[in-house]
Amino acid sequence: MMPDFNRRHLLVAMAAGALSGIAGRAARAQADVLPSWSDGPVKQSILDFVKRVSQEGTADFVPVPERIAVFDNDGTLWSEQPVYFQFAFALDRVKALAPEHPEWKTTEPFKSVLAGDLKGLVALGEKGLLEIVGATHSGMTIEAFTKTVTDWLATARHPRFDRPYTDLVYQPMLELTAFLRGQGFKTFIVSGGGIEFMRPWTEKVYGIPPEQVVGSSGVVKFEMDADGKPVLMKEPKIEFIDDGPGKPVGINRFIGRRPIFAFGNSDGDQQMLEWTAARQGASFMGLVHHTDAEREWAYDRQSHIGKLDKALDEANAKGWTVADMKRDWKRIYPFEK
Amino acid sequence: MMPDFNRRHLLVAMAAGALSGIAGRAARAQADVLPSWSDGPVKQSILDFVKRVSQEGTADFVPVPERIAVFDNDGTLWSEQPVYFQFAFALDRVKALAPEHPEWKTTEPFKSVLAGDLKGLVALGEKGLLEIVGATHSGMTIEAFTKTVTDWLATARHPRFDRPYTDLVYQPMLELTAFLRGQGFKTFIVSGGGIEFMRPWTEKVYGIPPEQVVGSSGVVKFEMDADGKPVLMKEPKIEFIDDGPGKPVGINRFIGRRPIFAFGNSDGDQQMLEWTAARQGASFMGLVHHTDAEREWAYDRQSHIGKLDKALDEANAKGWTVADMKRDWKRIYPFEK
Repeated sequence: MMPDFNRRHLLVAMAAGALSGIAGRAARAQADVLPSWSDGPVKQSILDFVKRVSQEGTADFVPVPERIAVFDNDGTLWSEQPVYFQFAFALDRVKALAPEHPEWKTTEPFKSVLAGDLKGLVALGEKGLLEIVGATHSGMTIEAFTKTVTDWLATARHPRFDRPYTDLVYQPMLELTAFLRGQGFKTFIVSGGGIEFMRPWTEKVYGIPPEQVVGSSGVVKFEMDADGKPVLMKEPKIEFIDDGPGKPVGINRFIGRRPIFAFGNSDGDQQMLEWTAARQGASFMGLVHHTDAEREWAYDRQSHIGKLDKALDEANAKGWTVADMKRDWKRIYPFEK
Repeated sequence: MMPDFNRRHLLVAMAAGALSGIAGRAARAQADVLPSWSDGPVKQSILDFVKRVSQEGTADFVPVPERIAVFDNDGTLWSEQPVYFQFAFALDRVKALAPEHPEWKTTEPFKSVLAGDLKGLVALGEKGLLEIVGATHSGMTIEAFTKTVTDWLATARHPRFDRPYTDLVYQPMLELTAFLRGQGFKTFIVSGGGIEFMRPWTEKVYGIPPEQVVGSSGVVKFEMDADGKPVLMKEPKIEFIDDGPGKPVGINRFIGRRPIFAFGNSDGDQQMLEWTAARQGASFMGLVHHTDAEREWAYDRQSHIGKLDKALDEANAKGWTVADMKRDWKRIYPFEK
């Protein structure tokens, strides 16, 4: 006679055989598509929404071509501390370009950058920052700029983690964007960051191709170079700021459809979420709340970077989904075990 | 004994049975993917190019994500005579809005429009035209504007053909864009026309979704309406002209990749073709030459609409493909037999 545990095993095996079709389907349905998200209302709100809009014949069904999902980048798809990564890039570019600009040693804002005096730089205000962006993001072809970005990402290291900046992407958001794409969504980045700073790497890092990246931009001019070859030159002039009320404008300009799913992390995303919420039919609005000083950073209402204040109030008042990083994310970065 | 013809049939049937696999593949390979294009060097140049870039392991191979194809709209995907269809829309809108603007009866350029005096209108020059576009394309939400476009297309008739304007699309180009998509290309419109005038219908008519439409645009502003609902308002101010040197700029801004395939029909497309031609690796540049006054229209170097002069010289000098409508298109419109 078989010992009890073996009989149980046999019964289980028989049942498994008989029910293999059903079991297979059930296993697939229950596979955790968001393994880095803790179980709870936040994760459930995402799963419920996607299920609702995907069921044909129901009131909330949204046809595949209209399943537009938009994501802020800094602080939503990757970290943004201690400074926006694009700003770290600009500071490094100032240092790299300094030999060609001896006058920078005595001219602000470059003087402060070269002296490593970030406090002095901040004291110069927005004008100083814009000058740095202008000097490091223009006066070259778009291909030359792309190369400076790619080269920088290959060599620069984040000061806290001593890793490439593109390692500091959020594992839960990689899972979420991939899950949405699997459900027929088209995923877009809608970022206050520079469009040409992001496009060289978003496809490889996030699976989001250049033509699905919306961002701030400088003026670009078509001209013939000395060899009579057409080039696009980056000029030191802002064209469009894709932030705050600029985000719905950018979405309308680039995508031409209203999103049904939007995720941000700061007051700069508030209007994008409002625009999504005001669509006729089902919509999902989400915020990442940075609450984990140990694994990432903790900041919100008082932060100069990624300030989250009014948008948090609106999210709480309107029942939007707020992902508390500490509570809702089991894993933050892909490099964590 | 079977009569000869039956024996032949039997042999054929046997051979067909034996070779069905090969025959099936051959039939599919030889199916005419561009049935409205006359056989000849123009059609062949398209087929050859697509074959070249699709064969993995060859020097000209282009990976699927980089197979970006761009098409001008007016005169390339649909007709543009006797006036750009968007301008016909604007004139009809002036008439429709006139009761709300009694002052238009005595104020140019509206006075000329309402009097049916197109010569007087043309005499007012570009400023007059821009005023008409401003008055008919702004002061409303983007949804309200979309509705005016959709309503107009449902009722307006082209003066020569007495058909909806969207019937005047080119059958050969419908076949070409569908063929390219089947070969992994992503097809975009890059038009001097208004982006919000095109997006309401390009998906239905061309199979090109709103997010793959690049065009000229006016300023749009995010604001809260009287009910506290967020809206995007169209303002009477030009934001971007996607024509001539603006086309490579628009391609860079919206798509962020250089096309490998570009088709236009006028000098306004010259820089887009130059930009495509200057890419490293294989590229295809094509022009539609309007040469068929009987079935469509015949115009080029002297035309005020769709002027084709310098771009034609460059195409001839550089060996770009020039589709001669009369010679290369067996059928022009889908409604032809």
